[in-house]
Amino acid sequence: MTKPMLQVALDTKDIPTAIGVARQVVDVVDVVEAGTLLIYEEGLSAVRSLRALAPDKIVLADTKTADAGGDVGKECKDAGADWMTCINAATVPTMVSAQEQIEVQVELYNNWTEELAQKWIDAGIDQLVYHQSRDAKIAGQAWGEKDLNEVKKLIDMGFKVSVTGGVKPEVLKLFKGVDVYTFIAGRAIHGAKDPHAAAMEFKNEIDRLWN
Amino acid sequence: MTKPMLQVALDTKDIPTAIGVARQVVDVVDVVEAGTLLIYEEGLSAVRSLRALAPDKIVLADTKTADAGGDVGKECKDAGADWMTCINAATVPTMVSAQEQIEVQVELYNNWTEELAQKWIDAGIDQLVYHQSRDAKIAGQAWGEKDLNEVKKLIDMGFKVSVTGGVKPEVLKLFKGVDVYTFIAGRAIHGAKDPHAAAMEFKNEIDRLWN
Repeated sequence: MTKPMLQVALDTKDIPTAIGVARQVVDVVDVVEAGTLLIYEEGLSAVRSLRALAPDKIVLADTKTADAGGDVGKECKDAGADWMTCINAATVPTMVSAQEQIEVQVELYNNWTEELAQKWIDAGIDQLVYHQSRDAKIAGQAWGEKDLNEVKKLIDMGFKVSVTGGVKPEVLKLFKGVDVYTFIAGRAIHGAKDPHAAAMEFKNEIDRLWN
Repeated sequence: MTKPMLQVALDTKDIPTAIGVARQVVDVVDVVEAGTLLIYEEGLSAVRSLRALAPDKIVLADTKTADAGGDVGKECKDAGADWMTCINAATVPTMVSAQEQIEVQVELYNNWTEELAQKWIDAGIDQLVYHQSRDAKIAGQAWGEKDLNEVKKLIDMGFKVSVTGGVKPEVLKLFKGVDVYTFIAGRAIHGAKDPHAAAMEFKNEIDRLWN
């Protein structure tokens, strides 16, 4: 049983806000993510800034790339990222060309299949992000057994699975005993009054459940 | 029969390069696109710059958004975009929340279905981008009857369909007599020695075929 890592998703609208949060949690988290919205707003300067702030952590560029995987992968790597994301709607050649540059995670949104996931792992893409969409969540869905079973199935297929989308400390116990690779928290940390305390709450819950 | 519009996709790595191309083609094209790679690199400043250069044209932010549609839509609109893109893997609530802010095009990459497309149009999302992936193209696929039939079928469903992915002037005749909404050319224009002449070649071919 490996202890899950903790990732902060910095879905802020500008670099200064991201830096303001990151400096408070960098000693607690394992992975620092430049969120998609932040990259839209500021470009890959966001990744460069987070790399500068967190030289010893894993930095993720959450580009959710659908095309031109090789080009985007190279740019992300040059900006200092260790990992980038591709969307599940990207073709396998796009994912593979990205993976030739940088470690790729596939983000699971709408309309993916196990058959497709098998093609990814056969092609050497072994990181997945199991995602509950923010908008789907607003539309009334909640974490539960269905999510747990999907995550377990993907781990059994051989994937390193990260879990995200409205993850709060109380969600973690659903996954007790499961080899989750990383828990990704966004607003629960960067939207908290005290981001350091919020990150510690996640960390303590991980330590309690996976000991 | 409506004459298709012409769109330049500025998939450049920085704003100055995009501006350098855009100023040469802005009098020829109908839609100016801030490409995904450009937005990754420079953020929404890319959209603001293109809006400033082309105040009377349609400006598209090719974000390929998968989540947080409302937030991204608002940011794109505030940056001056008229349209933005969502990826086919986005959930319907994500697309709808984006559409509440700005006109949305759904980009068709891997693993979409007609059943899903029907849900989009039922939800009021009526623009699609039929896309041949650059990486899939590299892997050996070419424009042909299969593409033509897919595009026709989507138009028959009621969609305004834009066509992209390695589009060159000689590809256009495949679609003669079909109500394509927009032809999108990227490298064929911004990678040309003379971008203005390249754009004119597309424009003349559209005028010849749809007269």
